[in-house]
Amino acid sequence: MTDNRSPESTAKHAGISGNPPTAGAIPGIVGIGLLGCGNVGGALVELLETEGEDISARTGISPNVRLIGVKNSAKPRPKAVRAEVLTENLMSVIEDARVDVVIELMGGVEPAGTLILEALRRGKPVVTANKELMATRGAELSRAAEQAGVDLLYEAAVGGAIPIIRPLRESLAGERMERLMGIVNGTTNFMLTCMSDDALTYSEALVAAQESGLAEADPSADVDGHDAAAKVAILASIAFGGEVGVERVYREGISQLSPVDIAYARRLGFEVKLLAVAERTHSDDAGVVDIAVRVHPAMVPRSHPLALVRGAFNAVFIEGGAVGELMLYGRGAGGRPTAGAVLGDLIDAVRNLRSGSCGTSGTSSPIRIRPMDDLCSQYYLSMEVLDRPGVLAAVAEVFGRHSVSIRVMEQVGLADEARLVFLTHVAREADVQATMAELDCLEVVERMGGMLRVVSAGEATEEGGWRT
Amino acid sequence: MTDNRSPESTAKHAGISGNPPTAGAIPGIVGIGLLGCGNVGGALVELLETEGEDISARTGISPNVRLIGVKNSAKPRPKAVRAEVLTENLMSVIEDARVDVVIELMGGVEPAGTLILEALRRGKPVVTANKELMATRGAELSRAAEQAGVDLLYEAAVGGAIPIIRPLRESLAGERMERLMGIVNGTTNFMLTCMSDDALTYSEALVAAQESGLAEADPSADVDGHDAAAKVAILASIAFGGEVGVERVYREGISQLSPVDIAYARRLGFEVKLLAVAERTHSDDAGVVDIAVRVHPAMVPRSHPLALVRGAFNAVFIEGGAVGELMLYGRGAGGRPTAGAVLGDLIDAVRNLRSGSCGTSGTSSPIRIRPMDDLCSQYYLSMEVLDRPGVLAAVAEVFGRHSVSIRVMEQVGLADEARLVFLTHVAREADVQATMAELDCLEVVERMGGMLRVVSAGEATEEGGWRT
Repeated sequence: MTDNRSPESTAKHAGISGNPPTAGAIPGIVGIGLLGCGNVGGALVELLETEGEDISARTGISPNVRLIGVKNSAKPRPKAVRAEVLTENLMSVIEDARVDVVIELMGGVEPAGTLILEALRRGKPVVTANKELMATRGAELSRAAEQAGVDLLYEAAVGGAIPIIRPLRESLAGERMERLMGIVNGTTNFMLTCMSDDALTYSEALVAAQESGLAEADPSADVDGHDAAAKVAILASIAFGGEVGVERVYREGISQLSPVDIAYARRLGFEVKLLAVAERTHSDDAGVVDIAVRVHPAMVPRSHPLALVRGAFNAVFIEGGAVGELMLYGRGAGGRPTAGAVLGDLIDAVRNLRSGSCGTSGTSSPIRIRPMDDLCSQYYLSMEVLDRPGVLAAVAEVFGRHSVSIRVMEQVGLADEARLVFLTHVAREADVQATMAELDCLEVVERMGGMLRVVSAGEATEEGGWRT
Repeated sequence: MTDNRSPESTAKHAGISGNPPTAGAIPGIVGIGLLGCGNVGGALVELLETEGEDISARTGISPNVRLIGVKNSAKPRPKAVRAEVLTENLMSVIEDARVDVVIELMGGVEPAGTLILEALRRGKPVVTANKELMATRGAELSRAAEQAGVDLLYEAAVGGAIPIIRPLRESLAGERMERLMGIVNGTTNFMLTCMSDDALTYSEALVAAQESGLAEADPSADVDGHDAAAKVAILASIAFGGEVGVERVYREGISQLSPVDIAYARRLGFEVKLLAVAERTHSDDAGVVDIAVRVHPAMVPRSHPLALVRGAFNAVFIEGGAVGELMLYGRGAGGRPTAGAVLGDLIDAVRNLRSGSCGTSGTSSPIRIRPMDDLCSQYYLSMEVLDRPGVLAAVAEVFGRHSVSIRVMEQVGLADEARLVFLTHVAREADVQATMAELDCLEVVERMGGMLRVVSAGEATEEGGWRT
């Protein structure tokens, strides 16, 4: 907020004592130190400028941006960003005595991590939208916040504007979480919507996403599932109360998907979505939480609420023991929606700072992550085969030998070639992978097509593995 | 929780000093006093019994049910409800020194209101699912909680298991809310889904709902929109930061809906839903928040996320200035889902009790509620007319005289009678009502059919009124 009429805060800070500093001595005024001023940062400063009075009337809190740390202070910025608050000395933003709360919107693991730790050490609450950092060093940072007795809030790191972190931490704190499935990357969901509606190829859909400003020139973070993997690592850590690093998330992207497979999926009554899944699995050890965490394209039944999430929207579908099925839906990205989520965290942090409390993250449990090979799911498989007698028998024999039972088979002829499409009963991932490897070597199989895991509405867990 | 091995809490209470009592002296144990033990109360006790150890492991909190106040202690209860904790002396539940937190699940305005006030006065946080009470005396009770410095939490009062109150109060605290539209009554949504899918009449759908255990023998609270009106009063109070009593909510139920109108709506690309709407309207006075609050059946475009909410599910669709469009979806009723929401509040209340803080409700603004006559919306109108020349001209003349502009007209003949169906451009409610009254007197009009307001995706506000 750039309301120059507001008198400056004269807050005294508790330094490194770990006690929260008192908020601005003039009631209402809160000094903000911002790290990073790109898309989201610029939108936040504009939001505080245009809505400042309204925010103050609604919440009794007047955020006042004291300093903005940026890499290049000469770069053009939105009008609301006053040149005099810009600095290239990032640590000075943390150190400034007029800064009560630090908002980190630079992204990347470093120097963001070091700056946040220093802010927490000085008893300053931190709001961040940094999914990469939280997915790799979230546990360490959360412990530092707890030790300092101040908030580290990161609602904007997952699902943009959608309230998802706070409901998981608070509303569902007592809930036995069973499964969480999210469409948490808007770029790939936009591309899949194009591929489904307009039969675009992957490459055409990527160009469409780039032209819409949704995909980067190097789209790898989105299309290879890195972004979704970071987000599901964060969600899984909260939902199952343990430490789930992003490196433990199984990950497949969407670049291998063909419009043919998407069209088949539709004909069978499914939409193809890039799903981020974290679910509780069968466990023999008391006290250990067994989960599976993965990102991959999946076939979602058209009757499932997630199938209806289109374009750049995001949604997280939650299955809990008591609350049953919940879905939280909204804009997963964009400067203004994400800035809205940051603002919500900021107000929460200031309220807690004033009351001398901070959000608790609950207890931490030992988490064991099941290998992907153990997954039990239905599968969609397609392949191009020679159009000659005996082919189906040869193919079916491979399925049978690996205990993969076929539920639906369709054969579609194209000149002297044919495409076979299979939907299996629930099978084990390792068996399906072995089936595919062997089929690929079969003389009658010209080329293996797509493989998609199929989301069920929640059937009984198969022994030794888990459902999807 | 009925874990008899747990040592009793020896908490000392701060009496009426307004200071929060310390939670159970044995770390983790929290004494619960429950008022009411019906569907939700029974499910909560069972949940605490079966999940008690898990809840304790996840949150560090072990809720221990000390006393349950009921009207009739001789009534059969679920097995988890131990007879020795039942009492017909409701006030004794509040007064008991072993009770740290009071959970009110009796429903009704009195004696629930008096009991809650007394609990707050004694510095005991209260969790309630009582929508009727919160919709009529919410402001008074919230002030009492604030004065006592303890929590009054009521997530379960609206939308059952769906986290909606907390996101509105916290995640969206800084947000300029524009509109909130909810499907907040599962019984009527179930009935409308039946009427739409299976062409049932209203009466047939009601029987189906009663047979499914969704509708009461006297269904008025649901079908006449009283339940939805109470819920939207609560949501509007939070979203717009002021006092919105249920008596100020405009209300129409679903009993006048015919399957014919629902079928027409579908053909035109809409689903008919009982919507609870609270929206910001044009205001000339700075500092005064002008809103409209209403419950009525409405036509929702099939592409809108709310159109896809089927059966007994609930959803609240939120439009905010920064976050854009959000939807929160889930099970709106049922013992176990509602008990899940109560449990989330309970854990929040205990955490706050321990840290000596409580949730703040933000500042309160003067709220002005616009009269229904000022609503600007598109309308669907149907009527049976004589099948003779000149009828359309006579009908169209009435529309024109009241400045109601027709966008689509369809005529369907049935023997010597015909049905006219109109979709208007945006018109003013008062003008449409006047048009309908006059049409009803027209000799060529045999019978007026249904009238439905049409939800737009958010067009420009009409001067002097507001869009819907």
